[in-house]
Amino acid sequence: MDKRVGVLGGGQLGAMLVEAANQLRIPVNVLDVGHSSAKQISSIGTHIEGSFKDPEAIKKLADISDVVTVEIEHVDTTILEKIAGTVDVQPSWKTIRKIQDKYAQKQHLHERGVATAESVALKTASMEEMEKASRDVGLPLMLKSRREAYDGRGNYPVRTKDDFNLALEALGGNKDLYAEKWANFRVELAVMVVKTKDDVLSFPTTETVHENSICKLTYTPARGVSEAISQKAQELARKAVACFDGKGVFGVEMFLLEDDTLLVNEIAPRPHNSGHYTIEACRVSQYEAHLSAILDLPLQQEDLQLREPAVMLNILGGEAKDSHLKIAQAALKDRWLKVHLYGKGQARKGRKMGHVTVCAPTMSEAERRMQPLIDLVDEGKPAQPKGVKGQPANEESAKNKPLVAVVMGSDSDLPKLADGLKILRDFNIPYTARVTSAHRTPYLMAEYASSAASEGIKCVIAAAGGAAHLPGMFAAYTPLPVIGVPIKPSLGDGRDSVLSILNMPRGVPVATVSLNNSTNAALLAVRILGAGDEAIRERYVRYMREAEAAVKEKDRRLQEVGAEKYLESMAK
Amino acid sequence: MDKRVGVLGGGQLGAMLVEAANQLRIPVNVLDVGHSSAKQISSIGTHIEGSFKDPEAIKKLADISDVVTVEIEHVDTTILEKIAGTVDVQPSWKTIRKIQDKYAQKQHLHERGVATAESVALKTASMEEMEKASRDVGLPLMLKSRREAYDGRGNYPVRTKDDFNLALEALGGNKDLYAEKWANFRVELAVMVVKTKDDVLSFPTTETVHENSICKLTYTPARGVSEAISQKAQELARKAVACFDGKGVFGVEMFLLEDDTLLVNEIAPRPHNSGHYTIEACRVSQYEAHLSAILDLPLQQEDLQLREPAVMLNILGGEAKDSHLKIAQAALKDRWLKVHLYGKGQARKGRKMGHVTVCAPTMSEAERRMQPLIDLVDEGKPAQPKGVKGQPANEESAKNKPLVAVVMGSDSDLPKLADGLKILRDFNIPYTARVTSAHRTPYLMAEYASSAASEGIKCVIAAAGGAAHLPGMFAAYTPLPVIGVPIKPSLGDGRDSVLSILNMPRGVPVATVSLNNSTNAALLAVRILGAGDEAIRERYVRYMREAEAAVKEKDRRLQEVGAEKYLESMAK
Repeated sequence: MDKRVGVLGGGQLGAMLVEAANQLRIPVNVLDVGHSSAKQISSIGTHIEGSFKDPEAIKKLADISDVVTVEIEHVDTTILEKIAGTVDVQPSWKTIRKIQDKYAQKQHLHERGVATAESVALKTASMEEMEKASRDVGLPLMLKSRREAYDGRGNYPVRTKDDFNLALEALGGNKDLYAEKWANFRVELAVMVVKTKDDVLSFPTTETVHENSICKLTYTPARGVSEAISQKAQELARKAVACFDGKGVFGVEMFLLEDDTLLVNEIAPRPHNSGHYTIEACRVSQYEAHLSAILDLPLQQEDLQLREPAVMLNILGGEAKDSHLKIAQAALKDRWLKVHLYGKGQARKGRKMGHVTVCAPTMSEAERRMQPLIDLVDEGKPAQPKGVKGQPANEESAKNKPLVAVVMGSDSDLPKLADGLKILRDFNIPYTARVTSAHRTPYLMAEYASSAASEGIKCVIAAAGGAAHLPGMFAAYTPLPVIGVPIKPSLGDGRDSVLSILNMPRGVPVATVSLNNSTNAALLAVRILGAGDEAIRERYVRYMREAEAAVKEKDRRLQEVGAEKYLESMAK
Repeated sequence: MDKRVGVLGGGQLGAMLVEAANQLRIPVNVLDVGHSSAKQISSIGTHIEGSFKDPEAIKKLADISDVVTVEIEHVDTTILEKIAGTVDVQPSWKTIRKIQDKYAQKQHLHERGVATAESVALKTASMEEMEKASRDVGLPLMLKSRREAYDGRGNYPVRTKDDFNLALEALGGNKDLYAEKWANFRVELAVMVVKTKDDVLSFPTTETVHENSICKLTYTPARGVSEAISQKAQELARKAVACFDGKGVFGVEMFLLEDDTLLVNEIAPRPHNSGHYTIEACRVSQYEAHLSAILDLPLQQEDLQLREPAVMLNILGGEAKDSHLKIAQAALKDRWLKVHLYGKGQARKGRKMGHVTVCAPTMSEAERRMQPLIDLVDEGKPAQPKGVKGQPANEESAKNKPLVAVVMGSDSDLPKLADGLKILRDFNIPYTARVTSAHRTPYLMAEYASSAASEGIKCVIAAAGGAAHLPGMFAAYTPLPVIGVPIKPSLGDGRDSVLSILNMPRGVPVATVSLNNSTNAALLAVRILGAGDEAIRERYVRYMREAEAAVKEKDRRLQEVGAEKYLESMAK
C-alpha cells in the first residue's frame, strides 16, 4: 500500500479510481489539465498540470510514481514505451497501442480465435474502397474510424450504396477507416475483466443500452439472458483480454446476436462506463480491482460477485446548461439511487457529467426505482429511430422476470390452479405457467427443470393427477424447492395423485399440499420466497393479519345476529 | 447541492463525511490543524488551518460556509452561539452544549422520560461525596467525568469502597464528576438516529463490543437480540434524540440489561463509530444521512435499511509503530473486507487508525470472514478481565444463529428426526431442535412460533404423529415456510398423521413429506434456504451430483457382477 500510482487523465474514471485509492490512503498522482475531476478529491498525491499527451508531463509523472496507468487509451504510447524502462506501466504500452487502432485490435483478436464482427480496412477514404468493402462484408455495414473513436464519434451506419458519400463525409475524410459487418444484435453485453499477475477474472455480465451510440443505461445481471449465455459472455471476455499483455481492468463490449452467437465489439484497456455499477453492486468495484491488479494486491473471482441487481443511468449534458443538475436533483428524491457527479464544470450536450446507480433486492425493484429518472431523461425527446444500432427489443419482456414456475402435466389442470395463480398475482410475485408433461414431453420437461434455477426461478409449483410423476421428476432435475399439488383425476378419489406425489424416496423431497389445493401451494411459495426476501415476508404478514381480521369479523357477526340467522344468510 | 458545508474537526468522521460529499461534489470546508484526515481527500472546499476550538478560526469557517456542523462535540459552544446569528449551525449549539456535559445530558433525558442509568453528580471530588454517591446509586458504580470523556477516558469502575481513592486519583482530581449506577448489561447496543427538519429516523440496531472501554467490534443486526427488542431499542433511541434541537445524525449508545430493559448510556451529536458499517451495509450511510439532514435533502426511513448483515472491526494503533498497517495488510487478503485507513500519520496505542467492514449474505458468513482479523488483533493479548464493562457473554452462543427450527411434539419423535438433523449438519446449516407440543404446551408453542421469524429462522421443520397438529398450528403463527413430517404412531399405519398434516385448510399451507421422512424434510429445507442463498444452492447441486454418481456406481457394479451375484452381496 506504499506504492505511488500515476494516472494519465483526470476525468471521471480517474476520479473514481482516486476514490477507491483514498480509502486505503494510496497516493495517486494525476496528470491532466486544470482542476480536473480526479484532482478535486485528492490532495494526498502530487498532481501534474498538463495534457496526458504531453511527453514532458508524462515523464514528470513517471518520476514521482511507482506504477503508471491510464484512464483513457488515447495517450502517446511512444512516451509510455520510453518510460517503461524506469517505471512500471500497466497495462503494457503494447496493449494500449494495439487497442488504440480498432482495426488492429480486431485482427489481433481474430487471429487468436476470439469471435469478432468481420472487418475490412479501407486503403483510402474513397468510393472505390467503399465499394470493395461493401462486397466483402455486405450491406448494411458500419463504417468506423480506426482511431480516436468513442461514444459513437467515428461510427457511421451505411445502409445502402446511397450512404457511401454521406459516410465518408461524416467521418471527415479520415484516411484510417474500416468497414464492419452489420451485427444484428438482440442485446449488447459488456463484461469487465481483471487481468492480475496470475489470473484473468471477470465481473458479472452487464446489459448495455445505447442511445445515439452513447451508453445510456446498464442492467446487471443482463435481463432476459440465460445463465448459460451469461457465463459464455464472461468466458469470451476473459479469452479476449487474455490476448493482451499487462495488468489492470479491461472493458469488453459484446453483441449477442439473434441466434445467441456472441461477438466481441471492442475492448477498453481501463475502467469502463459499463462497470460503474460495480461501486455499489459488487463486493469489489472495478476501480478497486484495477488498483489491486496494478499493485499486486490479492484478488479472487469470488470478490467480483454481485451483491444485488443494479441499474446504472448516465447523466449527460443536455440542451440547457443545468439539465444534468436537474436530473441529479430529481435522483435525490429516492435515496436508494446513488448519484455520482463528476465536477466537470461546463456541460455540453452529450458530455458525461455524472451517473446514477440503484441496487435493490430484485431487478424489478431496481427498474421501478430508476424509471422516474429515465422518464425525466426521455422527456420531450423524439422517439429513438429503430435499428440504428439494433435497439434491443427485450426491455419490456424481461421486466418481470418470473420467480415462480407453475408447471402442469396437462392444460386440463389449469382450472384447478387458477386460485393459486391469483394469489401469486395478488402478492405481486412474477410467475410463469407452463404445460410440460413428464410422460408425453420427457425431454422438454428435463431441459426446462434443469435450467429453471439458472433462469432465476426460486420456487416451483408442479401439479399433476393420477400417476402424477411431474412434481417428483421436476424435483429430480432441479435444486429448487418443488411444491407438489395433487390434482383429483376424473376417476377415483384422488388418493393415487396424493400418494404418488407424497411418497417420494428419501433424497428427493417434494413439498406436498392437499388435493387440488393450489391456494396453499401458492401461499407456501410466497412463504418460501419470503424466507429470503423481507419485503415479501412483510406482505405475507399483512395477509395473515387480514385473514385474522376476516375470521374475527365473522365471529362478531355470528354473535351479533345469532346462529340461526347466520345459517339463514349462508343458505342464500 | 450548492450549499457549502463547514466542519469543525477533520478527523476520520470528517473524512468520511467528505467522502459522501465528494460523490455529489458538495464543497466541504474543513477546520483543523495540518493535513488532517478530511483535508487529504478534498480539494473542492477551502480548508482552514487552526484548532476547532479556536474562536477566530471558527469565525473564518463560518464566513465561507452556508451550514456549519461538527465531527466532534468537544468544541467551544460560545463561539457556535455567536456565529449562529449569521450562519446555520447544525445540530444546534444548545444541543452540543447540553451533550458535552454527560451528567446534564442524562438529567435532560431523564426529565423527558427517557430511561437512563441512575446518576448523581459529585459536588466535589472528595471521599465524602464518593460516600454519598455510593449510598445513592449503590456499589459497584461507574465514576465518570462530566466533560471531555470518550473512548473510555474519564471512566473508572468502582467496585468497593477501597476503590474510592483510586478512582478519584485516576480521574485526576477533576471536579466535574458524577457517579452512575452499575449497569449489568447483557449486551451493548447502538442506534444511529437521523434528525431531519421533519422526522426522526433510525438506522438498524447494532451490537457493540468494547475492549478497554474502546469500541472494538460492531455487529449489525445485533446478534441474539429479538426483532421486538431491536425495534424497542430504535424507538428509545429516536425518543432520546427527539429531546434535542437541530438536525443531523446522532449516535445513541444503550445497555440491554439481563431482564431485557433498555437504558440510554450516552449520545453523540454527530456521526459515530458504531455507524461506520452503514457505508457498505445500508442504502444510505450515516455520512450521507448527516449531509441530507443538515442540507434538507430528501430522506426516508426505508433509506436507512440494511442491505446485508455486517461486522465492523476498528483498527487501533498497537504496540509497534506499524501494528495497524499489518492489520490492514492482513485484511486485504479477503477482499470482501473493506479497509478504511484514516491517514492519521503517527500511530499511538489505542488510537483509531482505520476500520474494516465486511458484509455478507448471512451474519455467520460475515463473522467467519472477519474472524482471522479478530484473531490477529487478539494475538498475544492477555485475556480480557471479565466484568470490567460487563463483557457481553453472547459472542460464542450467537455465532451460529440457527436458520432452521426443528420442532417436535414429543421427544419420542427425535429418533425419527435423526437422519434429517444429520443432513442439516452435513450441509452446515445451523439449526435449533425444540420440543414444543401443540396440545400440552400451547402457549409456549404459540410464543415460539410467532417469534421464530424475527429470531432469524428462515424455515421450520415440524414433526408430529397421530392427531399431529403441531405443523399446522406452527404454520398458523408464522409467516415462514413450514415443512410437516408425519410420524408413524405406535398404533395404526400412520395415515392419521399424514392426513392431519396434509389436509390443511386453504389459507394456511404446510409442505408435507411422506411418513417418517425427515431426510426429505431436511433436504427440502436446504432447497428452500438455497432459493435465497447461492452458496447453499451450490452445495445442494453438489449433493445431487454425488447422489447421481452413487447410483451410477451401483449400476456399474450390477453390470459388472450380474444380478445374481449382486443379490447375493445384498443378502450379506
